[in-house]
Amino acid sequence: MNSQATALKPVAAVSERDMANAIRALAMDSVQKANSGHPGMPMGMADVATVLFSRFINIDPSAPNWPDRDRFVLSAGHGSMLQYALHFLLGYDDIPIEELQRFRQLGSRTAGHPEYGHALGIETTTGPLGQGISTAVGMALAERMLAARHGADLVDHFTYVIAGDGCLQEGISHEAIDLAGHLKLSRLIVFWDDNAISIDGPTSLSTSMDQPARFKAAGWHVQSVDGHHMEGVAAAIEAAQQSDRPSLIACRTMIGKGAPNLGGSEKTHGAPLGDAEIAATRENIGWAYAPFEVPDDILFAWREIAERGQAARHAWEQRLAASPQRQALESAVAGNLPDTVFEALGAFRKEHVEKATKVATRKASEMALGAINAATDLTVGGSADLTHSNLTITKGMDRIAPDDYAGRYIHYGIREHGMAAAMNGIALHGGFVPYGGTFLCFADYARGAMRLSALMGQRVIYVMTHDSIGLGEDGPTHQPVEHLAMLRATPNLNVFRPADIIETAECWELALKSKNRPSVLVLSRQNLPMLRQAHSEEAHSDEPHSDENRSSQGAYILREPAEHRAVTLIATGSEVEIAVAAAERLETEHRIAAAVVSMPCWELFEEQDADYRKAVLGSAPRIAIEAAARLGWDRWIGDTGAFVGMAGFGASAPAPDLYRHFDITPEAVAAATLKLII
Amino acid sequence: MNSQATALKPVAAVSERDMANAIRALAMDSVQKANSGHPGMPMGMADVATVLFSRFINIDPSAPNWPDRDRFVLSAGHGSMLQYALHFLLGYDDIPIEELQRFRQLGSRTAGHPEYGHALGIETTTGPLGQGISTAVGMALAERMLAARHGADLVDHFTYVIAGDGCLQEGISHEAIDLAGHLKLSRLIVFWDDNAISIDGPTSLSTSMDQPARFKAAGWHVQSVDGHHMEGVAAAIEAAQQSDRPSLIACRTMIGKGAPNLGGSEKTHGAPLGDAEIAATRENIGWAYAPFEVPDDILFAWREIAERGQAARHAWEQRLAASPQRQALESAVAGNLPDTVFEALGAFRKEHVEKATKVATRKASEMALGAINAATDLTVGGSADLTHSNLTITKGMDRIAPDDYAGRYIHYGIREHGMAAAMNGIALHGGFVPYGGTFLCFADYARGAMRLSALMGQRVIYVMTHDSIGLGEDGPTHQPVEHLAMLRATPNLNVFRPADIIETAECWELALKSKNRPSVLVLSRQNLPMLRQAHSEEAHSDEPHSDENRSSQGAYILREPAEHRAVTLIATGSEVEIAVAAAERLETEHRIAAAVVSMPCWELFEEQDADYRKAVLGSAPRIAIEAAARLGWDRWIGDTGAFVGMAGFGASAPAPDLYRHFDITPEAVAAATLKLII
Repeated sequence: MNSQATALKPVAAVSERDMANAIRALAMDSVQKANSGHPGMPMGMADVATVLFSRFINIDPSAPNWPDRDRFVLSAGHGSMLQYALHFLLGYDDIPIEELQRFRQLGSRTAGHPEYGHALGIETTTGPLGQGISTAVGMALAERMLAARHGADLVDHFTYVIAGDGCLQEGISHEAIDLAGHLKLSRLIVFWDDNAISIDGPTSLSTSMDQPARFKAAGWHVQSVDGHHMEGVAAAIEAAQQSDRPSLIACRTMIGKGAPNLGGSEKTHGAPLGDAEIAATRENIGWAYAPFEVPDDILFAWREIAERGQAARHAWEQRLAASPQRQALESAVAGNLPDTVFEALGAFRKEHVEKATKVATRKASEMALGAINAATDLTVGGSADLTHSNLTITKGMDRIAPDDYAGRYIHYGIREHGMAAAMNGIALHGGFVPYGGTFLCFADYARGAMRLSALMGQRVIYVMTHDSIGLGEDGPTHQPVEHLAMLRATPNLNVFRPADIIETAECWELALKSKNRPSVLVLSRQNLPMLRQAHSEEAHSDEPHSDENRSSQGAYILREPAEHRAVTLIATGSEVEIAVAAAERLETEHRIAAAVVSMPCWELFEEQDADYRKAVLGSAPRIAIEAAARLGWDRWIGDTGAFVGMAGFGASAPAPDLYRHFDITPEAVAAATLKLII
Repeated sequence: MNSQATALKPVAAVSERDMANAIRALAMDSVQKANSGHPGMPMGMADVATVLFSRFINIDPSAPNWPDRDRFVLSAGHGSMLQYALHFLLGYDDIPIEELQRFRQLGSRTAGHPEYGHALGIETTTGPLGQGISTAVGMALAERMLAARHGADLVDHFTYVIAGDGCLQEGISHEAIDLAGHLKLSRLIVFWDDNAISIDGPTSLSTSMDQPARFKAAGWHVQSVDGHHMEGVAAAIEAAQQSDRPSLIACRTMIGKGAPNLGGSEKTHGAPLGDAEIAATRENIGWAYAPFEVPDDILFAWREIAERGQAARHAWEQRLAASPQRQALESAVAGNLPDTVFEALGAFRKEHVEKATKVATRKASEMALGAINAATDLTVGGSADLTHSNLTITKGMDRIAPDDYAGRYIHYGIREHGMAAAMNGIALHGGFVPYGGTFLCFADYARGAMRLSALMGQRVIYVMTHDSIGLGEDGPTHQPVEHLAMLRATPNLNVFRPADIIETAECWELALKSKNRPSVLVLSRQNLPMLRQAHSEEAHSDEPHSDENRSSQGAYILREPAEHRAVTLIATGSEVEIAVAAAERLETEHRIAAAVVSMPCWELFEEQDADYRKAVLGSAPRIAIEAAARLGWDRWIGDTGAFVGMAGFGASAPAPDLYRHFDITPEAVAAATLKLII
């Protein structure tokens, strides 16, 4: 039995049932006061949560980010009052009783669903079902990876998850469960709140799944217990801790347990119990205290848990202080990439400006990653089974395998959504900078978790290749059209669409430096010329081009004509080459002075000051060129502008044929210019 | 044994192995000529497909849309050459040998992945993995529902699916499998191409799933066979046809079977075999014919299958002609809604204009659905476990249950993606008009299948409620911000955001009438006043307002000031009320003449002629008001406009607090106006 399985005995005078009832009372009272929320789940899972926290979990509310703490993920995030009640009872500074009284109110820390960063000790944002359990897979994997690097003496903790029926019905749970079972993530323990109720009524309305058999099929260790029988729950947790595989503990519970009339009904799921039922519940569970009142002895019993966690944290800190791994671990957990990474990228840009290297930006990304991954081992790569299309693996990256977590490359399988959630979990856990690849079109599949990357402000880097009709023959199912708009509309997400190898390296640098924001690198399948040097000599003649990260301003003038601009062509990615060719054609054939603006990142351009933006955009009419939907471009082209791009879905054919078919060519841009300005 | 299980014997002179080798040769030759594509899967599954078609399937290439045909879905859509080879061999008119020679070329019918509507007999678009099997669940459900209504004499067919490892790893497959098992969709038979290879290499890189056990856990009938042993495959199909549950036939195969050096390797997955290996394969399988040559006897054997299908179709037509169900079935399959639906909606609008009914638009949708569903039984509703939040069920709608398919309401479970794919399948199958609900935010989860609704031009109606911060306390995980932009950027999709009960009824009418386009109804949680009558009297004084569907033009002037417009306020949905209040405030407090434009559907407005659009938008400065991301709005507000809406994610609080907090109020609109025009 390892140290964490050595269970504390509950305080003599206070039963765990009393401790659980404190959760029940706080949950029903807070929901009632807010007149909004979900009492049923906290009341149903109060017993399981009490056993877990009372006897097992190692967290320290006074140091909520202690790296070797156990992680607790409330995947069934609508039961947020379970978490807030626990946080109050455990003594988190930022959750005094007043915060429970302000549940779901503006500016409170007790938001409707647990939000990472919004209150201490919330390990991940949950609410969209299935995300918690899938994010937890990333956490549990990061734990194993960090342990492989720094030793079990410093990294040895569990990831506990409470998941509901919704989490297990969502497709993402399949991806997560399959991956966790395959990788034998033995420190992952999932409690399934098996209350047989969902919003519409009994789960038998819509599922006949044998969940234990399903988890067994995925290679999990599976137990079933009565979720209100505390010794049974405790025994199951002990067994789960000993397993060499991830564990499911199916907890048969009653939703709204304690409510004498509504318990067991979907009516307790998402609405206050009402004053009468709350009074009856108090009577029923023997809770003789006023709303929001918790007697000292019960509070004391809960606070003892925090003390146990604090002691464990102190012991860990002593081990850390004495360890030769100290600096490496602290640096990894802080997420600080060494300067050598950025020096390497600088040298890379210098080299390829000089060589004028012509490669697909996906290839450029692979080359840049070669430099990055050689300079740091914090980066952890992967792909949703498109490794040699996304080009996400570099030399010397060993794969992560069952029972072997020393590597740096994760074969996520054909699981875009699970990959994105796992990357969130890896980033949240700390110790690594995750990046992962798929085709841009399959951002659709990963959307739910990508949104959470943005909402949580995590440094997760999406490598999304095959970014337009330029992918060619695979056709419209694989050709993104609306995806750039979808991603650009998402708050707190940087969407980079570099035009050549130099911009690709610049965008990688920006993504790595964005510690509080996810990035999407949108990359071409087809080769693209190096554009920087040829056309920026005039404007920046005094400095070497490789020293300045011009993508950092979001957009910049790639080509400024000698004469006053008659038109400004704005493009991103693979269409910048077309814009440059169009500008040359306009100049030589029509004596029209055309500027070309490369705009790899709208978000960063939006953040520049007005003068810079005005200088870049210019006062001449503007034409945007992008092999994607127009939506959003009017922001930049204005009332007098035009757009050359996609008006519908793509088609299956070789890429050059498609560019001609959809009229995204230098000729088309020149024609649009003539129409606009003559 | 039912009629469909009575297997034909293969033609004496031609073995099924020869027939299968025709598929292999055509697949490898077509991919080689295109220098693009996926030979491995067609070669690996050629034997299974040959047995299925040779002995079981009932389709008639001369009448590819015959309603009682078996459905064949190539879920592993990258193996499209399997389907095209079959279509050529079976004699589909539109796939002569020349089309195989033009595989993946511009304008050919043989697109990179099978595309619905692009070639005859393609039942659904596949390629994004997992979609085919999940769409097939909808088809198999529609078959059972149609049989329950019109009798087994007229509706009695199977849905056959070929799925690969990718399909089964994707999360959507879990949702689909769970739903199909629960509903006991016994006419669904899935072949799993168990070749143990995915793009990155052996599937053991990323999965340890026991797929047969997984399907058993979901209530499926499961068999495992050698996919190259034809009698074994045939016996399994016969057993599957007899099962009262959906069936999985796990077919152990070799990818690229027949290729002597590359067979069994991921190298055959997504690239041409090359001339040398193709020559070696010819030798290996004894195929002595030139590229694209199929000897007459083999072709004849394949064409006999088509003849069997034609005979079955003729027999069915005779049964139909003699059936009292004829008219009802033909009308259902044609998808023609009776005029009474639209008369009912007209009466509904008239009634509620007069009553000035104030309800949430989700409630208005429920009320409109009450009228619709009473007037037709072609509509089939459902929700992803949010029935009483989405308000998608109406009086007298019985639920679909295992072994009871006579109802009209589907509890899809907590499975947004599976629901969307199933609705695609129901629409594609014919006989019903599916609609289904979830929260707008969870369009994220359904994106993959929603895109296919649009790409395939299917009349699938998404009822997406809780459409902004107006949902209140659930907070930012549940509050859509970027979702309107995401949906509006999607080609061939109508996004409706009605402002009141009248527009809601109008948008429902438009959605029902859009036979070749999906619709999303974006609806509020919060109550909204009826706006139409109060402000449109002046402009349309002669006609009753309820007779004209003003939403059909996408946007219209809801309020035209008596004086020349100084500003035009453009809004959608719940923000139209705010725009109207702002206009009134501007007029009374500042003597500023403000028009209000309600813009429930951008797509339809974009389709109006320039004069109409100009008249609606006006020449005064414009302010857009929408509780969502700005992205896209610059199209309508132009260079001199302003936007009042969301600049980031939402928050958890009561809705009125949030509108104030995010400054989306009449006061804020008035202030923005003053800033703009003074």
